[in-house]
Amino acid sequence: MAVPITILGQNQYGKAENRVVKITRDGGTHHIKDLNVSVALSGDLDEVHYSGSNAHVLPTDTTKNTVFAFAKEHGIETAEQFGIALARHFVDDTEPITSARIRIEEYAWDRIDTSAGPAPHSFARNGRETRTAQITYDSRDGGRLQVLGGLKGLTVLNSTDSEFWGYIKDKYTTLKEDYDRILATEVSAVWRHSWSGDGTPAPDWQESYDGTRTLLLRAFAETYSLSLQQTLYEMGAQVLGGRDELEEIRFSMPNKHHFRADLEAFGIKNEAADGAVYLAADRPYGLIEATVLRDGAEALIPLDMTNL
Amino acid sequence: MAVPITILGQNQYGKAENRVVKITRDGGTHHIKDLNVSVALSGDLDEVHYSGSNAHVLPTDTTKNTVFAFAKEHGIETAEQFGIALARHFVDDTEPITSARIRIEEYAWDRIDTSAGPAPHSFARNGRETRTAQITYDSRDGGRLQVLGGLKGLTVLNSTDSEFWGYIKDKYTTLKEDYDRILATEVSAVWRHSWSGDGTPAPDWQESYDGTRTLLLRAFAETYSLSLQQTLYEMGAQVLGGRDELEEIRFSMPNKHHFRADLEAFGIKNEAADGAVYLAADRPYGLIEATVLRDGAEALIPLDMTNL
Amino acid sequence: MAVPITILGQNQYGKAENRVVKITRDGGTHHIKDLNVSVALSGDLDEVHYSGSNAHVLPTDTTKNTVFAFAKEHGIETAEQFGIALARHFVDDTEPITSARIRIEEYAWDRIDTSAGPAPHSFARNGRETRTAQITYDSRDGGRLQVLGGLKGLTVLNSTDSEFWGYIKDKYTTLKEDYDRILATEVSAVWRHSWSGDGTPAPDWQESYDGTRTLLLRAFAETYSLSLQQTLYEMGAQVLGGRDELEEIRFSMPNKHHFRADLEAFGIKNEAADGAVYLAADRPYGLIEATVLRDGAEALIPLDMTNL
Amino acid sequence: MAVPITILGQNQYGKAENRVVKITRDGGTHHIKDLNVSVALSGDLDEVHYSGSNAHVLPTDTTKNTVFAFAKEHGIETAEQFGIALARHFVDDTEPITSARIRIEEYAWDRIDTSAGPAPHSFARNGRETRTAQITYDSRDGGRLQVLGGLKGLTVLNSTDSEFWGYIKDKYTTLKEDYDRILATEVSAVWRHSWSGDGTPAPDWQESYDGTRTLLLRAFAETYSLSLQQTLYEMGAQVLGGRDELEEIRFSMPNKHHFRADLEAFGIKNEAADGAVYLAADRPYGLIEATVLRDGAEALIPLDMTNL
Repeated sequence: MAVPITILGQNQYGKAENRVVKITRDGGTHHIKDLNVSVALSGDLDEVHYSGSNAHVLPTDTTKNTVFAFAKEHGIETAEQFGIALARHFVDDTEPITSARIRIEEYAWDRIDTSAGPAPHSFARNGRETRTAQITYDSRDGGRLQVLGGLKGLTVLNSTDSEFWGYIKDKYTTLKEDYDRILATEVSAVWRHSWSGDGTPAPDWQESYDGTRTLLLRAFAETYSLSLQQTLYEMGAQVLGGRDELEEIRFSMPNKHHFRADLEAFGIKNEAADGAVYLAADRPYGLIEATVLRDGAEALIPLDMTNL
Repeated sequence: MAVPITILGQNQYGKAENRVVKITRDGGTHHIKDLNVSVALSGDLDEVHYSGSNAHVLPTDTTKNTVFAFAKEHGIETAEQFGIALARHFVDDTEPITSARIRIEEYAWDRIDTSAGPAPHSFARNGRETRTAQITYDSRDGGRLQVLGGLKGLTVLNSTDSEFWGYIKDKYTTLKEDYDRILATEVSAVWRHSWSGDGTPAPDWQESYDGTRTLLLRAFAETYSLSLQQTLYEMGAQVLGGRDELEEIRFSMPNKHHFRADLEAFGIKNEAADGAVYLAADRPYGLIEATVLRDGAEALIPLDMTNL
Repeated sequence: MAVPITILGQNQYGKAENRVVKITRDGGTHHIKDLNVSVALSGDLDEVHYSGSNAHVLPTDTTKNTVFAFAKEHGIETAEQFGIALARHFVDDTEPITSARIRIEEYAWDRIDTSAGPAPHSFARNGRETRTAQITYDSRDGGRLQVLGGLKGLTVLNSTDSEFWGYIKDKYTTLKEDYDRILATEVSAVWRHSWSGDGTPAPDWQESYDGTRTLLLRAFAETYSLSLQQTLYEMGAQVLGGRDELEEIRFSMPNKHHFRADLEAFGIKNEAADGAVYLAADRPYGLIEATVLRDGAEALIPLDMTNL
Repeated sequence: MAVPITILGQNQYGKAENRVVKITRDGGTHHIKDLNVSVALSGDLDEVHYSGSNAHVLPTDTTKNTVFAFAKEHGIETAEQFGIALARHFVDDTEPITSARIRIEEYAWDRIDTSAGPAPHSFARNGRETRTAQITYDSRDGGRLQVLGGLKGLTVLNSTDSEFWGYIKDKYTTLKEDYDRILATEVSAVWRHSWSGDGTPAPDWQESYDGTRTLLLRAFAETYSLSLQQTLYEMGAQVLGGRDELEEIRFSMPNKHHFRADLEAFGIKNEAADGAVYLAADRPYGLIEATVLRDGAEALIPLDMTNL
């Protein structure tokens, strides 16, 4: 008994958070890929919403099975290659599905060091950042692919070379200017590849990720910062300057405040210059978000993607 | 040393997650409002990114102070009214700021029952859903307000009146059709008010929220479901049919799978019709997302807002 | 190649976090029980540690199967009754197992209100506190049962009737005395039943839980508090005074600080007496823990159980 | 109006989760220590519970101030040394306090690699395991110190050399024996130092931690496993065999199940020997807990400490 005055807008469905682990054996040496894969499909799906007819619905359970079957049939070289294969399959092989979006998180593992060197099949999870990827494939769009790389949970800190002064003072301003503060953030970034699957060879996804990560870390470390916005922009500029395959990058960077402890009441000086003690605060936190683009590029990364 | 070929795209900043609690005393009877307020400001902010000049920057610390000061000066009647006051202030009173977005979560509290009746100033947190609101005000847009209401974490379950069959079977399909299953989801919904602050009286925000929540719950309970998509659409249609002040609603609804335990190996029947035992699974889960619109309305709710 | 100088101490194993949901049908009216059940078994298990022999090991997978099978075979009247049945089974029916501990979390659901009254088979999860239970059964101990009830995540707040003054001042003390503060905490409590399964009838577990919860809330609301310790003790004393079936109760109660916002710099008074604005802080927090006992009772609840 | 038949049992209080960060400057090279410190004090504290008198209470706010002041006055060489200084201070300098327990979590940071080598004052948080320590000092116990080291969140995986067979089969057993499975766990371990502050020099805490961690990882990697219990015991035995300063170690090790995906229905073989695809499951999980002791040592680590 749907009320007749309403219509369906954008919609998608699929199985989220398929936790797939692939072991590859090279003789006695094993390799591991550890992914969290989420599938979202769109297409000719009005009826399942209006009447509940599932005639055009590939069950989310099937999309899950496909993720695991593809991992065995095609292997997982990189999250991007794996996501492209899945996206193309769902659209090309399922009549009513015209668009697929695959979101992937990847967790890294290091080999355990043993007395005999790096272990051949023993790993410790490397809890640094989570690598992310999003692959979108749309048959109505001439079969274009859009590949977004990214990372989240990369927590970094400069213990000096950060200042904050010269800002607007209004009636609610009490903040003191600071000429030597800690700058710390947890970087969430998404970057867009120019490659769109149009017959040209795909980037080397692993090399691209590693190179981008290196540039992000270096730009953070090497920027003398007058504001977190300046550091963010410099990180974006360095990435786009150094990685020709990327068009655009978006950041969410919380300002993880480290307040210098006020110990004056106890007769203790606590100056940054002498090595200070800080209180690491949880909430509230500054939140700085921005997109950096290659000149002339279109801004296509959704604004909240870096907050997921 | 920014690389010259890059430019700045969309950007915003502010203090996130200000946890503000306001007690209002009415004689010996107290009332409580408990909010989590996040501020995001945009405007003439290129320079802080390019050179680190903070001349146009109202510090995030000031935006935090303003949240607490406004809570005392203006009170918190509802999240929406409070967010509107804040958004207007930041844009109207700060020269370089042209747009403000206030996101709010609200946590509800119930009075504790004592032997003498409901306590006048003692509360227990009601852990049901979190109420959400987003207020956007943009001076370049003729000063239009956009008010989104919403909720998240509303977990609901129908123990029958749900079927799933008639779907596409491809080579990766193993799912059995089911004529009596549990349907459970954790509703995340965002709805958009037509009111835009153009001189007409604002909706009664509290009444609007309560009424929308009631319609969502009733539509979930009263829909005999052939698919979670159908239930979702019905929820949207009932809300738009019953709440004239709303134009659009978007949902993210995970299918929280409850698998009927397979006890055959132990000689135990476990049929839904007799009252069954289910395994509540964590991951993966189906994820159903869609927008429902009043016919003719524009779809303005960002696609990932319901995933935040 | 175990080094010979070491020996095995206390050990236990089992399947943790079995998420079992049981629907009971009474005609068209359904009832729901939603539990998270963790099994831990001990006994003659040295060899599995020393040599890896599993000859005395009932697989954790089997303990999981048993949880689901018992839910169907015996039903789930209460978490306590269900845990007792499981504990007795594992010890009595498995030769090498001499002791079983069942830990259970229970999540409550409310019926959805529809236009036709409370829904017969539609529920919304009630996100208040989580109910807990721990049942221990040891065959070496004459087959005694120990039943602990409890709850966690019960967040409560008094907006007045709380003071804090008269404390020790040392060289690191800066806190100002406060004669009207918010007192808020998230109660985690575990209580011990005197019943030990010795032929006497078991308590009415549901009535005991409901009554204990009511006493905890009332004592919190009705105590004019000079310290959180005093409130905690009063809660324990009221529970033991009102519930003859209980011997002992232990609490962990974080002092969830609500700091009165300092608005003086803006010329705004923010006094508790007028209804104030508070900043709800995350960390650090005071943490108050204590056991309250019936006089003559033994203290048997482990100290950290209320922190799990 | 406390009911007279109840008495106070074990109790403690203090400020939990003080997030203290200390930067030490060595010319242009900085070092960072990042701790989460929780204080719990016990002593002559009956009255604060019975009557609310705070005359014997050092406020939790003061304990917080002390943590930050001590970080500046005494520095943070290691968590253990810092905790010892704090524990002794609270007991020795505060009349009614007779016992102090300091719990510490430590988060590790790596220097960022820049084009000019390791950055002098830029760090990336190393998200591997969290290091833990607990220091207890009791003046009634002749002033003995007890120092527990530990870690949690160390996630490790062997992709082969793990079997599971020969276990008990009862009527609820369906598990198939497995001769080549993934063994994965998230190690939580607490170990006890024999040193008790009795005039003998303290261990080199950092070297002890590093050495213990290395032994844990190696034992995990190098043990051909017939059960997770066997691996656990071997880890304990190797640690006690290699670290003379330790008396006892306790583990909680969840069996993080990786189920080989069943792809038979799709005509795909998925054998471990060829490199298989696995589904990484969340819940339920096996949970293996045990203490390993040096022969003759007393078991003093509380059973649930590894579950905190």
